[in-house]
Amino acid sequence: MSLYAATVPQLASMLDNLDLWLTAASSYAEKKSFDPNTLLAARLAPDQYPLVRQVQAACDAAKFAAARLGGKQPPVHPDTETTMDELHTRVRAVVAYLRSFTEADFAGAKSVVVPLSFLPGKGMLGPDYLNQMALPNFYFHATTAYAILRHNGVDLGKRDYIRDMTLRDL
Amino acid sequence: MSLYAATVPQLASMLDNLDLWLTAASSYAEKKSFDPNTLLAARLAPDQYPLVRQVQAACDAAKFAAARLGGKQPPVHPDTETTMDELHTRVRAVVAYLRSFTEADFAGAKSVVVPLSFLPGKGMLGPDYLNQMALPNFYFHATTAYAILRHNGVDLGKRDYIRDMTLRDL
Repeated sequence: MSLYAATVPQLASMLDNLDLWLTAASSYAEKKSFDPNTLLAARLAPDQYPLVRQVQAACDAAKFAAARLGGKQPPVHPDTETTMDELHTRVRAVVAYLRSFTEADFAGAKSVVVPLSFLPGKGMLGPDYLNQMALPNFYFHATTAYAILRHNGVDLGKRDYIRDMTLRDL
Repeated sequence: MSLYAATVPQLASMLDNLDLWLTAASSYAEKKSFDPNTLLAARLAPDQYPLVRQVQAACDAAKFAAARLGGKQPPVHPDTETTMDELHTRVRAVVAYLRSFTEADFAGAKSVVVPLSFLPGKGMLGPDYLNQMALPNFYFHATTAYAILRHNGVDLGKRDYIRDMTLRDL
C-alpha cells in the first residue's frame, strides 16, 4: 500500500470536509442569529480542547504526517486563530501544503524514523507512525470538531464526514 | 506499506482501548452511584447514534475491514446489546476475530474490489476502501464513543486513546 495515498490525498480530502463543516456552522449561526465565532470556544467537557484547538490539532496532525513522511520541514502555524475566517485560512493553508507533496517525496517514508517530541530519544518507523499515531490522532481531532458542531445543533450528517470515494464498477 | 498492519493489529489495539474506556465508564458509575448501563443511551445530539450504537458501529467497521481485505465471511452480530457487560463481550469477540487473521490472509487485499452495500453495483479497491472508508469510519465511531463518555464526566484522556506505540531508539 502507498504511504503517500494513505496520507496526502486522504488527509487533504478530510480537511476539505472539515472546511465545509465550518461553513455549515457559520450558516447555522446566521440562521439562528448568533455570532459564529462563539463556537470556537465550544467544547464537550471542561477539560477537553474547544473547537478552535481541535481544528488546529487536526491541521497539525495532517501537516506533520506529510512533513515527517515526505522528508520536508513543516511550516509553522502559531495557533493564533480567533475567528471562523481565520480557521478556514488555516485549514486551507494545510490542504495546499499537503497537496504540494508528490508520491516521489514519500520514497523514504517506509524506512524513516520519526522522532516523538514528547518522548526524547525515541521515534517510530514511518508506517508505524502513520498507523499508530498520525491517523488515529488526526481522526480524533477531526471527529471531535465534528462532534462539537453536532452537539451545538449544526446540520451535519455522515454524508459530510465521508465524501470522496474512489469507486469501481463491480 | 502492509494493508494487514494498517488493519488488523491497529484496529484490534484501538478496540482494546475502547474496551478500557467502557471499564472506566463503569468505574465512574460505581463511584457516582449510578447504573453504568444508562450510559448506553447517552448521545451528543438527538439525531446522532447513542453510545451503544457507536460501539457496535466501531466493532462492525473493524470486523468488515478485516473480512473484506482478508477474504473471509464475517461473523454476524445482531446488535442486541443492552448492558456494558454485553458491549465488552461484543468488543472482545471482534478483537479475537481480528487477531485470527494472518498477514498471508491479506495477500489479495491490494487488488480486491469491496462491494458497498449502500451503492449497488459499485465497490472500492482494497487500499481505497481502507483509506477512504474503513479507517475514517472506524475512527469516527470510536472517537464519538470516547467523546460521549468524556461529555458524561468519565475520567479519560488522550493517553487512553493512543496507547500502543512501536518505538525505536533514535
